[in-house]
Amino acid sequence: MKIYVDAMGGDNAPAAIVEGAVNAIKDYDVPLILVGQETRIQKELEKYDVPDQSVQILNADTVIGFDEEPVMAIRKKTDSSLVVALEAMKGQKDAVLVSAGSTGALLAGGLLKLGRIKGIKRPAIGVALPKGDKVSFLMDTGANADCKAEYLAQFGLLGSIYCENLMGIKNPSVGLINIGTEEEKGSMMVKEAYQLLKKSDLNFIGNVEARDIPTTPADILVADGFTGNIVLKLIEGLTSFLMHGIKDSIMGSTKGKIGGALIKNDLKAFKKQFSSEEVGGAPFLGIRGGLIKAHGSSNAFAFQNAIRQAIMFSQADVIGKITEALKNQGEMHHE
Amino acid sequence: MKIYVDAMGGDNAPAAIVEGAVNAIKDYDVPLILVGQETRIQKELEKYDVPDQSVQILNADTVIGFDEEPVMAIRKKTDSSLVVALEAMKGQKDAVLVSAGSTGALLAGGLLKLGRIKGIKRPAIGVALPKGDKVSFLMDTGANADCKAEYLAQFGLLGSIYCENLMGIKNPSVGLINIGTEEEKGSMMVKEAYQLLKKSDLNFIGNVEARDIPTTPADILVADGFTGNIVLKLIEGLTSFLMHGIKDSIMGSTKGKIGGALIKNDLKAFKKQFSSEEVGGAPFLGIRGGLIKAHGSSNAFAFQNAIRQAIMFSQADVIGKITEALKNQGEMHHE
Repeated sequence: MKIYVDAMGGDNAPAAIVEGAVNAIKDYDVPLILVGQETRIQKELEKYDVPDQSVQILNADTVIGFDEEPVMAIRKKTDSSLVVALEAMKGQKDAVLVSAGSTGALLAGGLLKLGRIKGIKRPAIGVALPKGDKVSFLMDTGANADCKAEYLAQFGLLGSIYCENLMGIKNPSVGLINIGTEEEKGSMMVKEAYQLLKKSDLNFIGNVEARDIPTTPADILVADGFTGNIVLKLIEGLTSFLMHGIKDSIMGSTKGKIGGALIKNDLKAFKKQFSSEEVGGAPFLGIRGGLIKAHGSSNAFAFQNAIRQAIMFSQADVIGKITEALKNQGEMHHE
Repeated sequence: MKIYVDAMGGDNAPAAIVEGAVNAIKDYDVPLILVGQETRIQKELEKYDVPDQSVQILNADTVIGFDEEPVMAIRKKTDSSLVVALEAMKGQKDAVLVSAGSTGALLAGGLLKLGRIKGIKRPAIGVALPKGDKVSFLMDTGANADCKAEYLAQFGLLGSIYCENLMGIKNPSVGLINIGTEEEKGSMMVKEAYQLLKKSDLNFIGNVEARDIPTTPADILVADGFTGNIVLKLIEGLTSFLMHGIKDSIMGSTKGKIGGALIKNDLKAFKKQFSSEEVGGAPFLGIRGGLIKAHGSSNAFAFQNAIRQAIMFSQADVIGKITEALKNQGEMHHE
């Protein structure tokens, strides 16, 4: 198992990334490979007491920014932390990279440098929507703005493999995000995806309307990347908007201020249930190599959780399991 | 001006519908035509003191339920309140129907009985997302699950005419719901719609990411009916989920209960800003007749607001304005 860390990607790099990596090394007892500017990483590492053999630095002089055109950046910036890491990962089945850098660059880099697993139509980005003591794993959240029904059905398969192996959910349930619960509802693509999911071996539980996303029992929520991204971002934006709005409303009156002080802890506990920091990063599924995208604004705690997820991803051999599942599917189709 | 009321549609019909209609008659001093089972409507009306000349009853023996297949129901149930109302509206340019019944049946009925305005590619359903002292008018919210870029551009035009005339917003701004703010982001359809909106005469302000929907300055938000429906329903579901979750968290501790009592009024005031009851119903734009869909669970207050909206719709001659705008556009294209 080799876990690579893009030490330069993200808003708080390299300080928060290195801090999260050091905590991961201590808590999970795994060695890590930090990729980025050696002198800066070294300087950060000096703040902590880390055994020499548990951390390796792979030097990379530059970094790909959030505003760079992904494909171009991957092609040109061969000395960037992302490209250096991906080149090092090539051919290693159990290697996983964690990056808080540009999502587009990570996806383009994964596709160009590592390639798709055989039989994968389109790799997708999954995000675990936190809901108290469980999650719904949403696929795709933005890798594919334009989709076909067969991609959606495959997202359901990829999500199922991930949930089974990383979350330990036996026979996870798959819901299809739609504008109605009935089989005949939705766009042409979604109606076709419904039929494909229905006749698959997956534990398909039907359509899930957007209003039911916060409470759905579905372990996996399937959507095209456009819809999935809208759902993800709207949940983030609206939750934050409502929480701030409630706070402002309360703080506007004296009675409210006193009341607010009394409910502060309850509100904090409630918010914590929906914190993406606890959940880790977003796995890219379908690429021949493990890629975990940590949030761009990750602090050390969030990044450490993303590393924990990378370790589990490697240990569970998710890529091997996906390869196997697609091989079996391919054979079934050729019978 | 003739305002028709589907007295039998909705969860609380006819009682809440008739109550809302009576209040509208008194508050706005307009006569209304109530369509439905005469004896039942008459019985409800007897509860109130309404001048005879201000209310007319158009008898219809049946009603189309929420679970009926729309096109089939419109074709077969010629004695339903919806079909009777639509037949009566034919050819009257200033007639508007308010219904809390099935959205699908209202749309199918509008298309089959009244038809599209000349030049309209696809009629769409707009919903005003309430946000404190302003709204964003979302188009389409579900009439068209499958769209083309040119429909989206027309939704922007229809929404602009509506906002200008019914909300008095001069040169209203139009945003396109997308998965990124940059021009080149999104699905093929949305990228093409961006270009069409950009070169239109509308006050197009660019892409709006889902996370910014709660705070966007855009008066109109354009989306295909699938995406728009997802956005609308997710806002409804998540807001309700969070509000209930906060309440439950607070009520779980003694300190929280005391605090909760103190913040109750502030929270209520905050919630009221986002209440759809205040906003009225959802107008169907592009049909040759005014159709306002009130929420299925409308109480008398919400339904009265939908009637107020219908009166404004008729007075502002929204249909005439749309017809005019499309004629001008048609001429421009033929120059």
